[in-house]
Amino acid sequence: VTALAPRDVVRLEDGAVVLLDQRQLPDMEVELECRSAAEVAEAIRTLAIRGAPAIGIAAAYGYALAAQNGEDLVEADRMLRSARPTAVNLAWALDRMRDEPTPQRAREIQQQEEDDDRRMAEHALELFASSPHVLTHCNTGALATGGYGTALGAIRLACERGRVEHVWVTETRPLNQGSRLTAWELERLGIPFSVIGDSAAGSLMQAGRVDIVLTGADRIAANGDTANKIGTYGLAVLAHHHGVPFVVVAPASTIDRRLADGAGIPIEERAAYEITSRFPAHNAAFDVTPAGLISAIVTGAGVHRQPFSFA
Amino acid sequence: VTALAPRDVVRLEDGAVVLLDQRQLPDMEVELECRSAAEVAEAIRTLAIRGAPAIGIAAAYGYALAAQNGEDLVEADRMLRSARPTAVNLAWALDRMRDEPTPQRAREIQQQEEDDDRRMAEHALELFASSPHVLTHCNTGALATGGYGTALGAIRLACERGRVEHVWVTETRPLNQGSRLTAWELERLGIPFSVIGDSAAGSLMQAGRVDIVLTGADRIAANGDTANKIGTYGLAVLAHHHGVPFVVVAPASTIDRRLADGAGIPIEERAAYEITSRFPAHNAAFDVTPAGLISAIVTGAGVHRQPFSFA
Repeated sequence: VTALAPRDVVRLEDGAVVLLDQRQLPDMEVELECRSAAEVAEAIRTLAIRGAPAIGIAAAYGYALAAQNGEDLVEADRMLRSARPTAVNLAWALDRMRDEPTPQRAREIQQQEEDDDRRMAEHALELFASSPHVLTHCNTGALATGGYGTALGAIRLACERGRVEHVWVTETRPLNQGSRLTAWELERLGIPFSVIGDSAAGSLMQAGRVDIVLTGADRIAANGDTANKIGTYGLAVLAHHHGVPFVVVAPASTIDRRLADGAGIPIEERAAYEITSRFPAHNAAFDVTPAGLISAIVTGAGVHRQPFSFA
Repeated sequence: VTALAPRDVVRLEDGAVVLLDQRQLPDMEVELECRSAAEVAEAIRTLAIRGAPAIGIAAAYGYALAAQNGEDLVEADRMLRSARPTAVNLAWALDRMRDEPTPQRAREIQQQEEDDDRRMAEHALELFASSPHVLTHCNTGALATGGYGTALGAIRLACERGRVEHVWVTETRPLNQGSRLTAWELERLGIPFSVIGDSAAGSLMQAGRVDIVLTGADRIAANGDTANKIGTYGLAVLAHHHGVPFVVVAPASTIDRRLADGAGIPIEERAAYEITSRFPAHNAAFDVTPAGLISAIVTGAGVHRQPFSFA
């Protein structure tokens, strides 16, 4: 069992933000060195690092690096903030860097996020009372948070406590964050799992082979509406249809308290060639799950139940 | 506009069953010549030809070829019948070949299937009254039937009659029959479409961008329970949740009148490496949609509504 350390995912050292290039996993473990805010923004945009909490931390380090380099900080903030539109964590982290653009502040943010991850996992334990067969979507592990993980962190702790037997990992098209990243993390952790096609979740639930669904989030509105990886909404509808609990695990940094509901969340449209290089394609990267389909939202503060109110 | 002719998909000539190798599409249009029942069975097993009606026709030609070759017909029947377990069309076609194992009989079967396809498309027209935005799964066109197509044939005719504006084509993991085969057929036919990830169907329905879902079938039980490509069940649940009509289009050869309901349909499990070559995977190729989620089943006989009864 070899858990990823937070600094393995992203760190600041010697004039560079160094990150594990997630585009190359699981085939190669290669580090990428970013030497300016622009290079960090490019790494975020191209998914060398991804996962809402992790890109927030990367942006914080990128901003601290820009300050060290004497870059224009207004421009650095603009580039990093706009690198991806859906996750609110970029804005959250940069807002916290503004009054103290130092490496130490960025490291504090990463440490606080890891602490929040651990609290979420502890709080989520109560949800696994009789839920040995878990389904999760996309990647929400250490790779996605630069910490302990959100949904996958909760699954990891529940597995350590003997409450999880098997994890169904959706492939997560088009970029296969499930079959590349979550599978890679679970293998390192020694947690039993099977990768499935995204469209196989329904028949597994129909057969009673899924006891709980856990996902992360990219942005949660004040009423609990949750933007997350495309396909999350479909899983929530399926879970609802089968009476399977559908749980979102996310840190406070993912909550956008200024947004009343999910209608205001910008949804990133990515390039068609991620789906097919040969034919026209539509590639929305996220969808919004209405609060009414969410059984619980777990944050570092505890397990929240309906009606949610994060205002 | 270049429509595929039935004989382009599969035919018997000069001591060989000749078929368009669907594994190579859309990159290459290559014909495969099968010179024994065993080679036809292998072509079916490895998906050189696929689609429930098309593999029935291929098996009929393979059986006629075996008779011409003086092969052991009991063994030929066994090999062809067991090439794939879920589609009932293999057994249906071979049952019809037994008393007259000739090329002429096999060609009659292909012609009758094409005629049935055309009738289905005509019957289905009434369902497109105000359904310009269509979603379909997997491939159900000429490639899948060796005729005019089932669900995709209905969409094609409805488009010719000005009733369809745009088709959402699910990628259909793990083998991409949607993004490889359906997209290729729609491009040739000049029908506007976009490929989407399988998991994007939910958010399109949520946004009101899907007016009707049409799929084919691999086996329909007497009560209307329908086995089809993995993911069909999830689409049916989503359609139900959003009040979108969910329609199955299939010829009589796909109906298994001896099966009371879907519980008796064998579901093919295919190799894990179709999903990922690196990690453990679960790869059921089909799922069963209960009749209660199906708005209509269109056969050559007409549009059937609930409660279905094909006994």
